[in-house]
Amino acid sequence: MKLPYPELRRAVADHFHHLGLALDHADELAEVILEAELEGNLGHGLTRMAQYTAQLQAGGLNPRPQMRLERPRPSVAVLHADGAPGPVAGLFAVRVLAPMAQEQGSASLAVRGAGHSGVLSAYVGRLAQQGLVALAFANTPPAIAPGPVLGTNPIALAAPAYPQPIVIDTSISVVARGKIIAASKKGEPIPEGWALDKEGRPTTDAKAALEGALIPIGEGKGYALAVLVEILAGALAGDILSPELPLPWMPPEQAAKPGLLLLALEPEAFGSGYAGRVAQLIQALEAVGGRIPGARRAALREKALQEGVEISETLQAELSKLGVHLQGGGR
Amino acid sequence: MKLPYPELRRAVADHFHHLGLALDHADELAEVILEAELEGNLGHGLTRMAQYTAQLQAGGLNPRPQMRLERPRPSVAVLHADGAPGPVAGLFAVRVLAPMAQEQGSASLAVRGAGHSGVLSAYVGRLAQQGLVALAFANTPPAIAPGPVLGTNPIALAAPAYPQPIVIDTSISVVARGKIIAASKKGEPIPEGWALDKEGRPTTDAKAALEGALIPIGEGKGYALAVLVEILAGALAGDILSPELPLPWMPPEQAAKPGLLLLALEPEAFGSGYAGRVAQLIQALEAVGGRIPGARRAALREKALQEGVEISETLQAELSKLGVHLQGGGR
Repeated sequence: MKLPYPELRRAVADHFHHLGLALDHADELAEVILEAELEGNLGHGLTRMAQYTAQLQAGGLNPRPQMRLERPRPSVAVLHADGAPGPVAGLFAVRVLAPMAQEQGSASLAVRGAGHSGVLSAYVGRLAQQGLVALAFANTPPAIAPGPVLGTNPIALAAPAYPQPIVIDTSISVVARGKIIAASKKGEPIPEGWALDKEGRPTTDAKAALEGALIPIGEGKGYALAVLVEILAGALAGDILSPELPLPWMPPEQAAKPGLLLLALEPEAFGSGYAGRVAQLIQALEAVGGRIPGARRAALREKALQEGVEISETLQAELSKLGVHLQGGGR
Repeated sequence: MKLPYPELRRAVADHFHHLGLALDHADELAEVILEAELEGNLGHGLTRMAQYTAQLQAGGLNPRPQMRLERPRPSVAVLHADGAPGPVAGLFAVRVLAPMAQEQGSASLAVRGAGHSGVLSAYVGRLAQQGLVALAFANTPPAIAPGPVLGTNPIALAAPAYPQPIVIDTSISVVARGKIIAASKKGEPIPEGWALDKEGRPTTDAKAALEGALIPIGEGKGYALAVLVEILAGALAGDILSPELPLPWMPPEQAAKPGLLLLALEPEAFGSGYAGRVAQLIQALEAVGGRIPGARRAALREKALQEGVEISETLQAELSKLGVHLQGGGR
């Protein structure tokens, strides 16, 4: 089934509004979930609606958060999100941070006490659309070796560019845990180099891998980057560390409240030939067949906006079970 | 030969002073080079003195830089380094950025037109010793696939912790080019997964690898991180991209002037239980045998400060050729 985007967004927003969210918050949550879906990042798209729904119903997320903003220093803001769904807090944070960074030249914002943010590209991407170079760091539940103690702790950046911002959003494990869960469900083995078993030995057994840990990229280097993110997103922003974040399959009343740190920089303030430099970089990378991060996602999004969003029968059934009935027909 | 640190520092500083650097700049350059040497990061230690010397003599580096600081916005500074050796500009940048970040809560500083910085850990480490969480990004000459267009573009972080700051300083290639140069000199093969030949095929031939490109960590992920650094350090800070940076073996009058972006955040401003969180993180990592980034380097440094710095005969001969005659004897 193919659905026009506006219809799908209305259906998803309605669903969250019926779960108690204010109209604007329900629409923001729909906006970020659908952005992931449209951009082909399906693990953070509509399949997550079941989790958001359960967490809102069980009180793991707060449908009517009283968010509170502090501005302790000229270039620092802290958003106490009161259990808001991550995208609601994240989009609010973007609206606060953009003018701060434009005024100060660079600024930071910590989001504390919000649910899972979904795709970090949504937040840095919106800052880039406002002319800012933006970084985001988030911690996630324990996943990587050794331990696991640290999460797959993603790092994101977006930077103004033509014809669309460069957008990077990468976790520091070789693969996402979702790929191992999928292999485990199908009873298939996984390639070497993805994971360790609980004794810390390399494994190709998906079930053993899920009891063990994911291997970080570049081994010690990815581990070090995970520590970097944990300090920024966990110790500094969220005031909560990966080991305290419940895994996604834990009871919904225990929804994780990870930390999110956003940094934004105003290129104009730096007085470099920023726009020309970025154009030059894109040209140099394209000349050797290097991909431009974010380009594929932007193309998928534009296609879906124009041609409608493809919803598989499985997903349709999942959504129907949640009470989201899609009319279909489309275009 | 083992030499007491103060004696070695004086000898190195004297050498640079004789090459025309002001006394304080000569001592700063010696300080950063020796920090790398003491911490076991030999690729950025005393073996680099030949390169610094040649570049200073050939005019690739400016021994008497007139550095100029701009403060276009409250939380942004730009240091125009006028061809100063990287460590001279970097240590000056630290002195400027620390009070800015303490006052603003977070702040950024771009270094433009300085030579190679040596170890980024030196700059973020000093900011952490002043209570700040600090990030650094630098671009480097072309090195990684595809192309090469992008450098091994390091990312560094230091964070206040007990008993010493956590210090991360990692490039985004699987191995440093230096390891491949070493294998090539010995005529030895390199392991699979390190590099590609100039046609982009995996190779174990060190010479073919040097004509090709290094493989980034996590392949597409490391590549994306290299783009991230290129935007921050190249387009924003340095106003110069990796492809414009001459390789280390190019004539010394063409010394690279890479970009360096420093960011610093004041943990107190964020109102999280920062110190307790970091202590908790260290404990959790140690409990599973995870290494604490920076601990090994700090231990090596302390040992060398107490017991003297070991200088091999090869290195002694290299230094002697430059006119640095070490007295030896030591302790």
